[in-house]
Amino acid sequence: MELLKHAIMAKGKVLSEDVLKVDGFLNHQIDPELMKQIGREFAERFKEAGITKVLTIESSGIPPAIMIGLELGVPVVFARKRKSLTLVDDLFTAKVHSFTKKETNEISVSKEYLNEEDIVLVIDDFLANGQAVRGLMEIIKQAGATLTGVGIVIEKGFQAGGDLLREQGVRVESLAIIESLQHNQITFREE
Amino acid sequence: MELLKHAIMAKGKVLSEDVLKVDGFLNHQIDPELMKQIGREFAERFKEAGITKVLTIESSGIPPAIMIGLELGVPVVFARKRKSLTLVDDLFTAKVHSFTKKETNEISVSKEYLNEEDIVLVIDDFLANGQAVRGLMEIIKQAGATLTGVGIVIEKGFQAGGDLLREQGVRVESLAIIESLQHNQITFREE
Repeated sequence: MELLKHAIMAKGKVLSEDVLKVDGFLNHQIDPELMKQIGREFAERFKEAGITKVLTIESSGIPPAIMIGLELGVPVVFARKRKSLTLVDDLFTAKVHSFTKKETNEISVSKEYLNEEDIVLVIDDFLANGQAVRGLMEIIKQAGATLTGVGIVIEKGFQAGGDLLREQGVRVESLAIIESLQHNQITFREE
Repeated sequence: MELLKHAIMAKGKVLSEDVLKVDGFLNHQIDPELMKQIGREFAERFKEAGITKVLTIESSGIPPAIMIGLELGVPVVFARKRKSLTLVDDLFTAKVHSFTKKETNEISVSKEYLNEEDIVLVIDDFLANGQAVRGLMEIIKQAGATLTGVGIVIEKGFQAGGDLLREQGVRVESLAIIESLQHNQITFREE
């Protein structure tokens, strides 16, 4: 998606060979108009999928997810992140390990808002190792719902998450895939 | 706002005299179309204010804030919530106590995204004791920015937060004010 790539080139900051900071428009300060365009792009790519629900994870997945839900006319559910949960009877839960933060969180979704009739699009801002997406897939499985695909704003193509999901037959649509951050340069994967 | 009150009556659950659960459309599952209408309503109320930035707090403040940002054509910044912060040099921070969760979190906003030229609208999903709003106001003060007002989706009118802010001269616009949850009944404040 050209508009997104322009934003990444203009406002992204390469902090290391692994870390791209996009705090300026995606995950701290947010550009609502860009989110709207992102929502439209995902809605276009998944318009034949019969999606009934968009599932994401707090907090940075919420802005793009809301815009996709608006375009498709379906509800958005965001999984909550907590260190540990005591009351879990009415929740689907999964563990998500963050390599960046070196911590494991439990994520949860109320059983009220996901069921076996749902056709679910998973949305997240970043895909690196794929831990968050796998946690959301686990929750979809517990609900007996159907995963139709995964929409990612920025995929780190040099980390394994996206390609491993694709090898397993999951439809992963990333609007920008970073091939490399070496030498302080942002290189996108050729499409 | 009638559309919002209808949603509260249809989908809100009174859990006690103090607790209204609106997980079905506002803070776990989200109704994007309702968020869009909420965004329009706030944009209409604050259209003369010269707003340059919308400030909210993760996670449930984000959906309405994004829609207001979209309507007004300005960026949205969400404050991050953490138990404690080590690196704070480049952050504005404030403490926020949650009476519900009985814990104090530190909230933070990068100094990059708020400055003395900003005219800021604070947005949150709920207003009860007003602790979160006061934390955001503290951050605006640190940045030397101007607070133009506070937009709240649901205010608990039977708790002191909103009225105390109004007594201090803060413009607080709440789209629905709950006067009472007694006897398992939702009663709105007359406008």
